[in-house]
Amino acid sequence: MVLNYFFNPRSIAVIGASSDEKKLGFEVFKNLKNYHGNVYPVNIKEEEVQGVKAYKNVKEIPDEVDLAIIIVPPKFVKQTVADCGEKGVKAIVIITAGFGETGEKGKKEEREIVEIAHKYGMRIIGPNCVGIMNTHANLNATFISVAKKGNIAFVSQSGALGAAIVYKAIKENIGFSKFISVGNMADVDFADLMEYLADDEESKAIALYIEGVKDGKRFMEVAKKVSKKKPIIVLKAGKSESGAKAASSHTGSLAGSYAIYEAAFNQSGLLIANTIDEMLSMARAFTQPLPKGNRVAIMTNAGGPGVLTADEIDKYGLKLAQLKEETMQKLREFLPPMAAVKNPVDMIASARGEDYYKTAKLLLEDENVDLLIAICVVPTFAGMTITEHAEGVIRAMRELNNEKPVLALFMAGYVSEKAKELLEREGIPAYERPEDVGIAAYALTKFKEIKEEV
Amino acid sequence: MVLNYFFNPRSIAVIGASSDEKKLGFEVFKNLKNYHGNVYPVNIKEEEVQGVKAYKNVKEIPDEVDLAIIIVPPKFVKQTVADCGEKGVKAIVIITAGFGETGEKGKKEEREIVEIAHKYGMRIIGPNCVGIMNTHANLNATFISVAKKGNIAFVSQSGALGAAIVYKAIKENIGFSKFISVGNMADVDFADLMEYLADDEESKAIALYIEGVKDGKRFMEVAKKVSKKKPIIVLKAGKSESGAKAASSHTGSLAGSYAIYEAAFNQSGLLIANTIDEMLSMARAFTQPLPKGNRVAIMTNAGGPGVLTADEIDKYGLKLAQLKEETMQKLREFLPPMAAVKNPVDMIASARGEDYYKTAKLLLEDENVDLLIAICVVPTFAGMTITEHAEGVIRAMRELNNEKPVLALFMAGYVSEKAKELLEREGIPAYERPEDVGIAAYALTKFKEIKEEV
Repeated sequence: MVLNYFFNPRSIAVIGASSDEKKLGFEVFKNLKNYHGNVYPVNIKEEEVQGVKAYKNVKEIPDEVDLAIIIVPPKFVKQTVADCGEKGVKAIVIITAGFGETGEKGKKEEREIVEIAHKYGMRIIGPNCVGIMNTHANLNATFISVAKKGNIAFVSQSGALGAAIVYKAIKENIGFSKFISVGNMADVDFADLMEYLADDEESKAIALYIEGVKDGKRFMEVAKKVSKKKPIIVLKAGKSESGAKAASSHTGSLAGSYAIYEAAFNQSGLLIANTIDEMLSMARAFTQPLPKGNRVAIMTNAGGPGVLTADEIDKYGLKLAQLKEETMQKLREFLPPMAAVKNPVDMIASARGEDYYKTAKLLLEDENVDLLIAICVVPTFAGMTITEHAEGVIRAMRELNNEKPVLALFMAGYVSEKAKELLEREGIPAYERPEDVGIAAYALTKFKEIKEEV
Repeated sequence: MVLNYFFNPRSIAVIGASSDEKKLGFEVFKNLKNYHGNVYPVNIKEEEVQGVKAYKNVKEIPDEVDLAIIIVPPKFVKQTVADCGEKGVKAIVIITAGFGETGEKGKKEEREIVEIAHKYGMRIIGPNCVGIMNTHANLNATFISVAKKGNIAFVSQSGALGAAIVYKAIKENIGFSKFISVGNMADVDFADLMEYLADDEESKAIALYIEGVKDGKRFMEVAKKVSKKKPIIVLKAGKSESGAKAASSHTGSLAGSYAIYEAAFNQSGLLIANTIDEMLSMARAFTQPLPKGNRVAIMTNAGGPGVLTADEIDKYGLKLAQLKEETMQKLREFLPPMAAVKNPVDMIASARGEDYYKTAKLLLEDENVDLLIAICVVPTFAGMTITEHAEGVIRAMRELNNEKPVLALFMAGYVSEKAKELLEREGIPAYERPEDVGIAAYALTKFKEIKEEV
């Protein structure tokens, strides 16, 4: 597939690479330097870029070039694309802005550029974008910091917001498999990327930030097909009247009624997020297997968070599992008298790692339970580390071969960071807020339904 | 007011203070050591606690004692409270658990303890709680880490969740003026605390986490009065059927229909939060003046976040302000041609600190604007630091004497942390998510309405 040249190129040309720290071409080349394939700087003036021999034109590079990143001023872009065609480049990312987003003249030029590219069988991402990342191949073809390695393919129609989300994800230890800033979508669009990412083994979920879809029919066709295979989570800006007005003032185009988008998203089997956190929380869930039904067991070391989480799952039509008598009896055997053995199981503050292990195991073995949420707040007893609680859950999950999904809610702010890392390393998404773990549980059950719909 | 002895005691006795690191009494005494008043450890066995001479009984302390913190085993609590009475103690925090939450026998004992206290004119917070903090007096009478100094008085009915929220707030740089874990509320309850906090100058907002209210009538009476003076934000657990069931399994008592609570909260002028983040986001807003109306101006350096924020304010019935022609004309004079001068004002990615300053000033001067939201995402141009954007907003606000409220949305994850700190130091709440700044704007306008209702 030609899109693979974007994410796993054998060699890259950075056209507009620079040694001048004030230029975007400086950051892009710096970010690409460590890529395992050959990376060639192209600059009409500089003989050397950041210590690497530079070429005046992509055509002079004495090697094949799969991917070209273009960061030259807008007036040189068209000729540069033609040069890439002659060189035999397969894929182009145009970071340069000043095209379709500026008005009719820019739109016309954008179309001409795409025509040139297609003549040579090349595909274009952009223009007016931040670039692309493939964290699993150590590829950062952007001018921003690289995302952490993970399982979410994140596609953003807003470059700035996309970058903001990358930085947020770094801070919150959320990993991406790919980051794709699609810019004006002059050529490669959401549909192309969904198709490509459907078969990308490193991406367990696809998250889309959408401002407006151009070819609605094709978008829906592809989404319908891909959403049977892989969860697609969508966040659409411009939901409200004010938002739509803002979007129209921003892009000059109508954002379209959100009701229409919503209907189309639902028909296409997409999972709809209302906020960035909802989008990320849902996407993170898919390192876990899908549940067989919607019966949720909650285990906790404090009542309050259990109640807040029960409130959240209720919002999405999930049910508190009715535990088997046998399960409750066994829980009663080792939990203290003050503990609640009915779901939500409140092991109370004295619970240690061993209690987490035994309780998680019993709940996962109960045939009335489809999904487990393991909650931990600050242990109130001195000498306790919150990591042992995480380890207990991990041990239970390992022994049971991970057949039922487990989600974690570790709410102790900076105190629980290490425990969350342990869980994440095992593929157990560890959330900090009841609403995040609630919508994650919803996403797993909803995707199960979408897959099974005829 | 007698409650002041809890938060500004001249001297404190820690009864059950210990040198044994495994005991809660170790942490509590350690946390109190730096208090400016005298702090005396009381321990029946230890001659010295953490290097400080200990007393066998509170009555032996050769000084007046305003506040006693009790962490002795439950069977000794009643006698200890009586000793405190004889000593002339004014206020008692009982951290020890094992009373009303264990059943009828415990409830009876709890009542007896309160009777003893009242006989001596003492008030009790607890039992079964984490303790209390007054960050402005360097008082941390709990066994957890101290919260950052701030303007929110946070009262929690769940000790563990309260602690989790303190740790979360530390991580997110949100400050508390007071933290009060009320435990079983055997004596001092929400109503008492609202009354006290209404006059507390260090608390600009009161945030309550509620599982269940005992004396509904008095709660409403006090809330109605206090909410005219100071914003009270309430988060109630057990909103849904599952949640109510969970709460009932947790406490053994019925949580009561949420619809009834909701009606009572609304009648009493409380601001209702649905999540912890909503509670904190609303409470943080009140370092700003109240808006005259509900017309919001948004300035941003990227379209997407402006649209998402417009979506959020719309949810709460706020309006995008219609800017005056004159304002738009003046914006046009210095913003680049690609910028949008209609609200939301999109200064585009090239915007620097000076643009933030000029734009903020023009928007705040526009008589059609009641409230300003200043948004900043990652500046995409190399050599730009996000702090200059924050400084621009601060400068505009200072020059205009802070008459209209300004809220900030700085979305660049770890990249924007320093900028957010600068803003917070000036009393401008700096959020990271559109939904948080949206509900903060709502809280300011809603509280304005509540104050003015007859």
